[in-house]
Amino acid sequence: MEFLCPSSLIDKIMRWIKVVMVLFSVFYSLTLRCLGSGPEKNNRIPDIPGYYTLKCDFHIHTVFSDGKVWPEIRIAEAIKEGLDAIAITEHLKYGKRSKYKEMQFEDRNRSFEIAYETAKNSDLIVIRGVEITQGMPPGHINAIFLKDANIAQKDFNETFAKAKDQGAFLFWNHPNWKSPDKSWEQDGIPQWFDIHTKMLDNHTLMGIEVVNARSYSKEVHQWCIDKNLTMLANSDIHFPIGMEYELVTEHRPMTLVFAKERTEVGIKEALMNQRTALWFENNIIGNENFLAPIFQKSVVVKKVSYHEKIAEVVLENESAVDFILENVGDYSLFNKTKIFILKAGNELKIGVKTGEVLEQFALKFKVHNLLVSPNDCLVAQISCNTD
Amino acid sequence: MEFLCPSSLIDKIMRWIKVVMVLFSVFYSLTLRCLGSGPEKNNRIPDIPGYYTLKCDFHIHTVFSDGKVWPEIRIAEAIKEGLDAIAITEHLKYGKRSKYKEMQFEDRNRSFEIAYETAKNSDLIVIRGVEITQGMPPGHINAIFLKDANIAQKDFNETFAKAKDQGAFLFWNHPNWKSPDKSWEQDGIPQWFDIHTKMLDNHTLMGIEVVNARSYSKEVHQWCIDKNLTMLANSDIHFPIGMEYELVTEHRPMTLVFAKERTEVGIKEALMNQRTALWFENNIIGNENFLAPIFQKSVVVKKVSYHEKIAEVVLENESAVDFILENVGDYSLFNKTKIFILKAGNELKIGVKTGEVLEQFALKFKVHNLLVSPNDCLVAQISCNTD
Amino acid sequence: MEFLCPSSLIDKIMRWIKVVMVLFSVFYSLTLRCLGSGPEKNNRIPDIPGYYTLKCDFHIHTVFSDGKVWPEIRIAEAIKEGLDAIAITEHLKYGKRSKYKEMQFEDRNRSFEIAYETAKNSDLIVIRGVEITQGMPPGHINAIFLKDANIAQKDFNETFAKAKDQGAFLFWNHPNWKSPDKSWEQDGIPQWFDIHTKMLDNHTLMGIEVVNARSYSKEVHQWCIDKNLTMLANSDIHFPIGMEYELVTEHRPMTLVFAKERTEVGIKEALMNQRTALWFENNIIGNENFLAPIFQKSVVVKKVSYHEKIAEVVLENESAVDFILENVGDYSLFNKTKIFILKAGNELKIGVKTGEVLEQFALKFKVHNLLVSPNDCLVAQISCNTD
Amino acid sequence: MEFLCPSSLIDKIMRWIKVVMVLFSVFYSLTLRCLGSGPEKNNRIPDIPGYYTLKCDFHIHTVFSDGKVWPEIRIAEAIKEGLDAIAITEHLKYGKRSKYKEMQFEDRNRSFEIAYETAKNSDLIVIRGVEITQGMPPGHINAIFLKDANIAQKDFNETFAKAKDQGAFLFWNHPNWKSPDKSWEQDGIPQWFDIHTKMLDNHTLMGIEVVNARSYSKEVHQWCIDKNLTMLANSDIHFPIGMEYELVTEHRPMTLVFAKERTEVGIKEALMNQRTALWFENNIIGNENFLAPIFQKSVVVKKVSYHEKIAEVVLENESAVDFILENVGDYSLFNKTKIFILKAGNELKIGVKTGEVLEQFALKFKVHNLLVSPNDCLVAQISCNTD
Repeated sequence: MEFLCPSSLIDKIMRWIKVVMVLFSVFYSLTLRCLGSGPEKNNRIPDIPGYYTLKCDFHIHTVFSDGKVWPEIRIAEAIKEGLDAIAITEHLKYGKRSKYKEMQFEDRNRSFEIAYETAKNSDLIVIRGVEITQGMPPGHINAIFLKDANIAQKDFNETFAKAKDQGAFLFWNHPNWKSPDKSWEQDGIPQWFDIHTKMLDNHTLMGIEVVNARSYSKEVHQWCIDKNLTMLANSDIHFPIGMEYELVTEHRPMTLVFAKERTEVGIKEALMNQRTALWFENNIIGNENFLAPIFQKSVVVKKVSYHEKIAEVVLENESAVDFILENVGDYSLFNKTKIFILKAGNELKIGVKTGEVLEQFALKFKVHNLLVSPNDCLVAQISCNTD
Repeated sequence: MEFLCPSSLIDKIMRWIKVVMVLFSVFYSLTLRCLGSGPEKNNRIPDIPGYYTLKCDFHIHTVFSDGKVWPEIRIAEAIKEGLDAIAITEHLKYGKRSKYKEMQFEDRNRSFEIAYETAKNSDLIVIRGVEITQGMPPGHINAIFLKDANIAQKDFNETFAKAKDQGAFLFWNHPNWKSPDKSWEQDGIPQWFDIHTKMLDNHTLMGIEVVNARSYSKEVHQWCIDKNLTMLANSDIHFPIGMEYELVTEHRPMTLVFAKERTEVGIKEALMNQRTALWFENNIIGNENFLAPIFQKSVVVKKVSYHEKIAEVVLENESAVDFILENVGDYSLFNKTKIFILKAGNELKIGVKTGEVLEQFALKFKVHNLLVSPNDCLVAQISCNTD
Repeated sequence: MEFLCPSSLIDKIMRWIKVVMVLFSVFYSLTLRCLGSGPEKNNRIPDIPGYYTLKCDFHIHTVFSDGKVWPEIRIAEAIKEGLDAIAITEHLKYGKRSKYKEMQFEDRNRSFEIAYETAKNSDLIVIRGVEITQGMPPGHINAIFLKDANIAQKDFNETFAKAKDQGAFLFWNHPNWKSPDKSWEQDGIPQWFDIHTKMLDNHTLMGIEVVNARSYSKEVHQWCIDKNLTMLANSDIHFPIGMEYELVTEHRPMTLVFAKERTEVGIKEALMNQRTALWFENNIIGNENFLAPIFQKSVVVKKVSYHEKIAEVVLENESAVDFILENVGDYSLFNKTKIFILKAGNELKIGVKTGEVLEQFALKFKVHNLLVSPNDCLVAQISCNTD
Repeated sequence: MEFLCPSSLIDKIMRWIKVVMVLFSVFYSLTLRCLGSGPEKNNRIPDIPGYYTLKCDFHIHTVFSDGKVWPEIRIAEAIKEGLDAIAITEHLKYGKRSKYKEMQFEDRNRSFEIAYETAKNSDLIVIRGVEITQGMPPGHINAIFLKDANIAQKDFNETFAKAKDQGAFLFWNHPNWKSPDKSWEQDGIPQWFDIHTKMLDNHTLMGIEVVNARSYSKEVHQWCIDKNLTMLANSDIHFPIGMEYELVTEHRPMTLVFAKERTEVGIKEALMNQRTALWFENNIIGNENFLAPIFQKSVVVKKVSYHEKIAEVVLENESAVDFILENVGDYSLFNKTKIFILKAGNELKIGVKTGEVLEQFALKFKVHNLLVSPNDCLVAQISCNTD
């Protein structure tokens, strides 16, 4: 058989085109197969009254800058981890600087385009972004919701202006990062420069990463509160996600966006109005207005009954977060010390020494890992009505 | 073949004796087989300077009162869970009251004797005790380190006196328990009666169960501190232990005894001098003098190095307790919020923002689940010397 | 306060009666709490056409002979493991032989009575039995479905006769057991004696334990087939079940009874007619007539589709047994070697190289761990209809 | 501050060079961190007398053809899974055919060069290869141990010749694969064409993939035996490995190479002389000469003692494979049916009914998942010497 020696050149060319097309279709279906599997562990953070709680990651790299995977992979990973939205944010001005001669092209839209195409049969929202990279100050700035990511200008202020012209949302990445560049001085303790004040004043800077990858900055957390900036938690992922996080037991950091609708527009509106919280390891970080309803929706009172004069309350934690609770209510507990953990996806029965049989009473807890400020946690009440 | 119809009656009797003896030896070896397996999960609580940390359970029942297993089982269970000592404490005056006509004998030494015999080829220390059961006040009182458990008198004060004559250590069981007996009123909130003051004054009452089975009493915890009483945590087990605790993930409550020697005498001396702490669920409860060295011995600083000006400290928790830590030191952390968990048997790397490279510095934590009082936890420092 | 010194003796007695009664009620409720939890792991063996598949254990001891737990525990254990029926079978003539003077009473009905009372609010069927214990031959014989277990006679043949008079089902226990009694010779290789032939002929012996505890006898398995005896698999449990089996990953051996109704009468009728199979570790042992439908009902064909000319068949194993499959069908498999495991509770997709697209085809497997004889396993077909 | 507006252009350029260099060094260290973690689960397949058993994967793609990760990732993955060697094998003639304009360069050495550079501080052996891709026949052919991978010629026979000139080892990939190309007809049932005979005769074709990714071909397995070809099992991985295999419970398919030395030369010599076996799911596939010593080295007899006349043999399986054993020896077993599983990394005690106390005896097993041919498994003896 002489498959590769057809009688005419045209036949040969046609055949090659066909082979190439089928190979692509194979990969496309392979990609979809990976996409199709969906989230594998409980990653539930409940919606809150008035808003969807969307799980987002706004800082992601691919081989189109210094990441190590093709954009399609970022879609498969996000779907597998149950995310609602991701932004692809390659380093601007990276192409020529690439260590690899093969990757020195400058079109900053390409990785978004490939990712977007891959996701189009899924529910995942893919956002066009870019990481505007320069020394400190002002450090690295992400611009997302762009229409065209090729916005590089000589002066970064002009770059920011071009992004703003497109209606982008700009935020400061990892202010606590220590670049190997010696001029970059903060050594883990972030510094706020005059330029940041200027960017804040002219509405260029609208958010900051309080959490980047495995780092959390207490100082940046306080800045966000003091300056009314949108808090963000992003992975800044470069490697395959499964190489950075043990996904059986861990999750990437996520920005929880409280959106009126589950669309790119909805996400942008929420970011512009500081409606975010951060899911970092076993913490949720954010304003009490969001953390209180998350806790209320997560913890269900399944049963309240009395055994003699001790109330037995069965609580179920439907969320993916283990709550570290400290009893600060009026009643001491029969079966728990002051501090105990209500595990994700679990029920727990607690005995409450109300002293008499009550029709109604309230539990009051400090929830140590729901942080409303760097040093303060949510205090929450749970109403109990005896069955 | 006519094995069971021998030519003479004597032969027949001898054969039966033999059969019976071998059956016993089979069970004895079966018991030892169960005994031999040893502790199956990390149950390490470290020794502290000057003392062995012995894991003890001083409140245990068998079929000889209202428990549901034969005494041999208590030995097998204790060895499997890695205990150092147990006390067998049947209800006094129980025989006649037994629901079962078969168990209405009154010798309160028997279950200890069987347990002691079973344990004699092991390292487990078995202590003779009894639970002196009456209404409230004074409630149920355990007497342990008895020479003869048959001490029942008409008046319980006389019973206590008999126990004291034998040099026993007496403690009050589960003051927070609500007996179904209506005259027993405290409803989970324990009451201290005059008789308890009297017993305290004449050195009859020397300890109290702060923890009994799955209950912990904040009020009793405070009594122990205020009145200088020995704290105890006991299982009060009646069923097979594996039916009450999921031993793969849980452990029974244990009294940690800080003893100068690993003997019954050593345990008694420690109890007489209030040298105990309580291991209850994921808490250790006791005086700071014991909790501080337990934490120091449990947490090993494996490595201190600098990445730029951020110190990277690798901590290993060698104990069986997950420590719930809150950073209250001079430096904020690079990769943790104020509260985080250092898991049992695990290593954790934390970044410390010392601001400059230091040869030596200290971390300071609140350890929320090491309770020095009902409302206060241990505050501990960890010294770090840069490698 | 003088709770225990009432003004009159009558008051005092009344109070004691009350205390005793409430203590019993506490334990009764504690027992039921343990009972209430139900089976904790997948222990599903499906019903088969025409019959319920009942999970039974017909050989169980308590402290009333040489077991180590009170009868109530046997009920709690059985319910927790999801059994349908148990028989309490103490050694006959044991009382006087007990090592313990407290247990030397002879009423062989007592442990059944206590167990029966405990189970009466549950679905568990509790059967009255006894183990008629003597040397070999004929070895130990269980009689179950008794009306009165006190059937001891001088001559065991007379004992058997008394049992038969009550309509009991008699079976031979652990013929492969080596008693420590030297006259007991078989050393693991069971011997069939003339007396067994006689017992078989006069319908005294109707079943044998092919499986006892952790032992399986290939020889006894063959006897059952050759002599048309009912096969049994029993635990012969003496210790708490959780001390003998790691119930998270293991189960006790069980006799699967194929009964027309879920009652004691239904079980007896099935045993009398050899309708049993044995669930031993990861094996089911029994007649093809039962094993074939168990396999058919356990394995569900969830999907049959074609990818090019390779059929993709999704099989789900709904049972609690991992099936060890060997492909012996007409088609080779695309993604499996000749032997592979279809795990309990799991789905598996297998590619079948049918060579062309077929509307209908059959898979054929040897199921190595469904044993129809000591050396032969079930061969089963699975029909596949393309979706 | 005006970090990005230095007074002179030279300063600016120097600064950029520095920034770029440090960014690279960050990634390099990040890569090494991932590399450094080493194998995480038992993946032990023992060495055999005279040879190292090397775990290899000779068919791997990256973004330099149609893979989805940068070559560095392939190194990190292989080290994490404990491989000894990998070959990077991009599709030849792929560049122009790439769907992505950015990847249409033709140098087939690049991905190897990057991978090789990444691995140079590790023990991983990285082999230069290429996948010579064309229609069927002859289908896809891998050439490995190349000096220069740019060997594309118009006629594939000339390409093969160029590879052979470099001393390459050539093997046929996934003969059972159904290309979407319609001319590719085999539909899972592989066909051997004349051209393969010709390639075999002139020593161009030296091996075949019996296993590719999740497929195993019984037919190809038989070809390898009949034609004395080297068997291979490769992943043909395109996605991140963790997206294709659940590495906590699974492993990629591997070619086990029995090499005289742990070098590229050693691997090549072994491949040229058919010294391979295949580790596919829970199977090892290969010649009895290799499988027998692997089993012997994997299974350690820890203890042989007698309980009466039943020998108790404790076997430990030190390998990563669960052995599916069928007893075909002279003695029946006391505690197992004919088939049972000796789990990876576990001990198992089996009772052997030798009938009398023997100083020495042998166990004999069919090892169902060690396949010496598509239909036959290894039969192995284990010698037991009584302690």
